[in-house]
Amino acid sequence: MSRALLAEALGSLLLSGVVIGSGILAERLASGNIGVALLANTAATAAILFVLITGLGPISGAHFNPAVTIVMMIQRALNLSNGLLYMLVQITGCIAGAILAHAMFELPLVQQGTHERSGLALGLSEGVAAFTLVLTILLVRRARPSAVPAAVALAIAAGYWWTASTSFANPAITVARAMSDTFAGIRPADAPLFIGAQITGAIIAAVVAKALKVANSHDGA
Amino acid sequence: MSRALLAEALGSLLLSGVVIGSGILAERLASGNIGVALLANTAATAAILFVLITGLGPISGAHFNPAVTIVMMIQRALNLSNGLLYMLVQITGCIAGAILAHAMFELPLVQQGTHERSGLALGLSEGVAAFTLVLTILLVRRARPSAVPAAVALAIAAGYWWTASTSFANPAITVARAMSDTFAGIRPADAPLFIGAQITGAIIAAVVAKALKVANSHDGA
Amino acid sequence: MSRALLAEALGSLLLSGVVIGSGILAERLASGNIGVALLANTAATAAILFVLITGLGPISGAHFNPAVTIVMMIQRALNLSNGLLYMLVQITGCIAGAILAHAMFELPLVQQGTHERSGLALGLSEGVAAFTLVLTILLVRRARPSAVPAAVALAIAAGYWWTASTSFANPAITVARAMSDTFAGIRPADAPLFIGAQITGAIIAAVVAKALKVANSHDGA
Amino acid sequence: MSRALLAEALGSLLLSGVVIGSGILAERLASGNIGVALLANTAATAAILFVLITGLGPISGAHFNPAVTIVMMIQRALNLSNGLLYMLVQITGCIAGAILAHAMFELPLVQQGTHERSGLALGLSEGVAAFTLVLTILLVRRARPSAVPAAVALAIAAGYWWTASTSFANPAITVARAMSDTFAGIRPADAPLFIGAQITGAIIAAVVAKALKVANSHDGA
Repeated sequence: MSRALLAEALGSLLLSGVVIGSGILAERLASGNIGVALLANTAATAAILFVLITGLGPISGAHFNPAVTIVMMIQRALNLSNGLLYMLVQITGCIAGAILAHAMFELPLVQQGTHERSGLALGLSEGVAAFTLVLTILLVRRARPSAVPAAVALAIAAGYWWTASTSFANPAITVARAMSDTFAGIRPADAPLFIGAQITGAIIAAVVAKALKVANSHDGA
Repeated sequence: MSRALLAEALGSLLLSGVVIGSGILAERLASGNIGVALLANTAATAAILFVLITGLGPISGAHFNPAVTIVMMIQRALNLSNGLLYMLVQITGCIAGAILAHAMFELPLVQQGTHERSGLALGLSEGVAAFTLVLTILLVRRARPSAVPAAVALAIAAGYWWTASTSFANPAITVARAMSDTFAGIRPADAPLFIGAQITGAIIAAVVAKALKVANSHDGA
Repeated sequence: MSRALLAEALGSLLLSGVVIGSGILAERLASGNIGVALLANTAATAAILFVLITGLGPISGAHFNPAVTIVMMIQRALNLSNGLLYMLVQITGCIAGAILAHAMFELPLVQQGTHERSGLALGLSEGVAAFTLVLTILLVRRARPSAVPAAVALAIAAGYWWTASTSFANPAITVARAMSDTFAGIRPADAPLFIGAQITGAIIAAVVAKALKVANSHDGA
Repeated sequence: MSRALLAEALGSLLLSGVVIGSGILAERLASGNIGVALLANTAATAAILFVLITGLGPISGAHFNPAVTIVMMIQRALNLSNGLLYMLVQITGCIAGAILAHAMFELPLVQQGTHERSGLALGLSEGVAAFTLVLTILLVRRARPSAVPAAVALAIAAGYWWTASTSFANPAITVARAMSDTFAGIRPADAPLFIGAQITGAIIAAVVAKALKVANSHDGA
């Protein structure tokens, strides 16, 4: 387990560092064209997701995301105490990633987000984002396990653009972004809505994936 | 069959949601540079196509497109009643995706497209777009089945840029886009031309694919 | 052979159509930012290369390029008469692709390029571009055949940016682009320099690939 | 060995040529939007990394990077004299690549960088960049060897955006960029900090990779 926890911590740190760090550089370089900045932020995030899931997947399952870990606990792929440890190192790792990004860009290490992201439509967006992410994991793991890294990377890449919230889709990343007053930041007061919607979306995805599977055993398709 | 229909409905919903939702955000963020907006729209669409075809392909064949379903019916891979059910849930799913995208961006849920897209050149474009899509499916399914998700995603990505109509290439998506007055929208009055051209292009692709195959059995290449 | 020739004709047509068509739309939409236009042109070209090589590779080898065909003739993978037929349909196909792109964008079907591309530095660029393309094909075919479509697509994508000529790297595409007065066009008077450099670069690549292989049999590495 | 050295020289030349050449064209075409320029520079660099590692990996291991070679020497995959030869041809190849890029763009062949890149934060960035690159290689080589080309390409693509130094991550490339007064250039005086940080980061990655592996043999995870 210690090895899996190290993998989760390291992966969460690098993922969070890329999400926040690429947001900082992208906003600085994009001459005010936020579309260009979000394209760069999207590409960097998707790229590191492919790398981390490919490299660390065999060690820890490469969750880096408490919403994913909760689904795995529900599906009994992970017991309660290990699941809680996973979530603890995911959140710690993501916070460390924010601090690392700030250090590289010579910003105050500990910050508080001020980017307002509130309202029902953004809550819906985060539910949809986490639903799509978890559904992707559950479906592709069954359909073609070797394609999981690419599929997760691309589900998040699409999510950055088709949801109104740019798809945080991850409670640990949401906590880290609440500690960053940069492009990727979020007001701490808005984090609970995001996290609640993410967990809800993830659980609905698990139910839908089960429906797709159960139907299978009934009529074979 | 119920499981396949659920997969077609869900995939169509997510595909349509991404096409329309990413168009909305891309246009908002691109500071008037439509090239940047279409790059983001392209990337999001290709990304979700890879995800959905990989994850749902084994369940329903991952058509999400009546033009593809018609070709499969002609090739007797799907009987008439199942084919009609496929098309019904594809259209329903795509409309639901448009509504979901509108909800996330706090727009009126039901809209009517006003983006004029008419004329012979656009009809030709849609024929070419659907021809390329269906030819890609038929060729790659035979050449390397595991590459179908990437090939379809990239055929559509190229189509967004090399056809004058940005490659709708899908009657169900065309219906959904006719119900959206956003970046991806189309005037309802222009939809019949697009849909007719798409079905024509798809059928021509089936004929060409057959020619490529038949020649094979004659002289072995 | 008829089937292989049909595949070469079709692939050349679609490749040329994408190169020229995406150039037209990209320039129109990029609000004067040529960097954005070339990014879109690059993405569309790389995307269709992956699709066409994956789908048509098993039928014809997916050359779509007389410089590649010449190398295959030198390596005796193709005899003289078949090689000449390949080149004939490649050139014809590429010209048809230019006409198709013009038709979709309601431009005069037959045009003459006016974009000046001359001088030793551009000649060097085309030699480097074709060298890199052919070296990629020869190395990756031996190292991992299933990666050839992605490798060729990405070698050309890089070429669009690191060579001063944006990597035409293909005599048939060069002829087609000389018949287009659009973003991707070239003055007919400049085509011979490009084509000569492309064939030279391709042959040098074949020599270098052989050196890499011969050395192998000497010391095993 | 001569064959491996030829592969390292050729790969280093092409990698360096793409990094510097695409920087030149990207800056020229991006109308002052540095975000667009770095997107193009990123795409070209990642693309050629995939190509070169796929094609040359079986011949030389496809290091193209003294920091990687040092790690391989520490892990005894390469002996001292071969390791030094690798580094010699990598540096020579990268310098030749800079000269080639300058030649294609009609710039003075030999230049001296003037782009200031100094300070602790950039040193930290280069350490992080090389750490991520080497960790990626060591993890993915074990987890899924066929994914190494894509993973390395994408780790560098992410690095271009999430580190404040745009991830040189390679001492030989750093030397070449110190000889280029273009978009990708660096002041020679700043190179030692970069190179020292890169080697440090690479060695730390080897230690962390070992920790992830050793833990495995203890508790199996």
